Amino acid sequence: MTTITTSETIRNGVDTAQLFATLDAVKAQPELGRFQFRATNTWIDGAHNQATIRDFYGAGGEDTSRVQEWVLDAGEPAILCGADTGPNPAEYLLAALSACLTTSLVYVAAARGVELTEVHSTVEGDMDVRGALGLSDEVRNGFERIRVHFTVTGDAPEEKLREVVARAQRRSAVFDMVTNGVPVSVEAATA
Amino acid sequence: MTTITTSETIRNGVDTAQLFATLDAVKAQPELGRFQFRATNTWIDGAHNQATIRDFYGAGGEDTSRVQEWVLDAGEPAILCGADTGPNPAEYLLAALSACLTTSLVYVAAARGVELTEVHSTVEGDMDVRGALGLSDEVRNGFERIRVHFTVTGDAPEEKLREVVARAQRRSAVFDMVTNGVPVSVEAATA
Repeated sequence: MTTITTSETIRNGVDTAQLFATLDAVKAQPELGRFQFRATNTWIDGAHNQATIRDFYGAGGEDTSRVQEWVLDAGEPAILCGADTGPNPAEYLLAALSACLTTSLVYVAAARGVELTEVHSTVEGDMDVRGALGLSDEVRNGFERIRVHFTVTGDAPEEKLREVVARAQRRSAVFDMVTNGVPVSVEAATA
Repeated sequence: MTTITTSETIRNGVDTAQLFATLDAVKAQPELGRFQFRATNTWIDGAHNQATIRDFYGAGGEDTSRVQEWVLDAGEPAILCGADTGPNPAEYLLAALSACLTTSLVYVAAARGVELTEVHSTVEGDMDVRGALGLSDEVRNGFERIRVHFTVTGDAPEEKLREVVARAQRRSAVFDMVTNGVPVSVEAATA
């Protein structure tokens, strides 16, 4: 009889037994895969606003596991007329992208038996702010391009690590959204 | 002689004199509008990784005004094989979107003489995680759609407030990126 201990199923901090069980469950009942994530945002003053994140819907019901909400302060640096109360919104997007590619990479490596030792990335976005400032219709409002550079080390040959990076990119939710775009509807109550 | 006091130029917490001076400066020297924003990300364990944000290039040089870096912890809830160490990456994207639309709205209102009393928003994104989990090629990895709902009150008629919301949407950097997409290059060193 073989007893599988926790240390045997956990790789890169991911419980691969739970990961494979999750995949099987969603394969068997595709409706469990329907999620809705949410944020609320309250304006404080000037460029300072606060997003809060906690509840979401997934796996057939409202999540109740989170014991706290997260508060994310946003701002703008002085040169963009803010008081530097937090990262600016475009920087939050870069953080979202780096986080998603990293998590995808770590999960893919765990599933494929690759033990990682380091995953580090730098992300840069180039923006001509004449777009967002309303000074030019010839430049876009957002980043013209984004560059991500990863450093990845682990117990696999270089070719396998590159495969993991490529697969993570093909499966990252935020990479998909940032490269392909998402339909966004905006409604306002101005009572 | 009219003395303009600070309280006369600040509206919605935005120094409109500085805002208009910034617009004039970038109009006169378009190269001042070139910015580069950045994030770095370090994997901690499992779905836990940390993005840091501080330095950026803009207005002709490297910014030195920020006295601190921000650390943004990301994670996944238990049901997605994480330890809930922070918002997940897709939630960070929703926060980025809400923050950018809010700041755009506040700046546009300040420039147009609209005194705001409240700006609040909720953002929802629908995702079928079979895409990101690699279980289906028929659903995308990211959100299928995002809905933003604003509540905006201020000292202007409803029509004017609606104009401000519409203008903010047309000038928001993150709204542009999330709806239209951005080219992203990913490179990896696997030494």
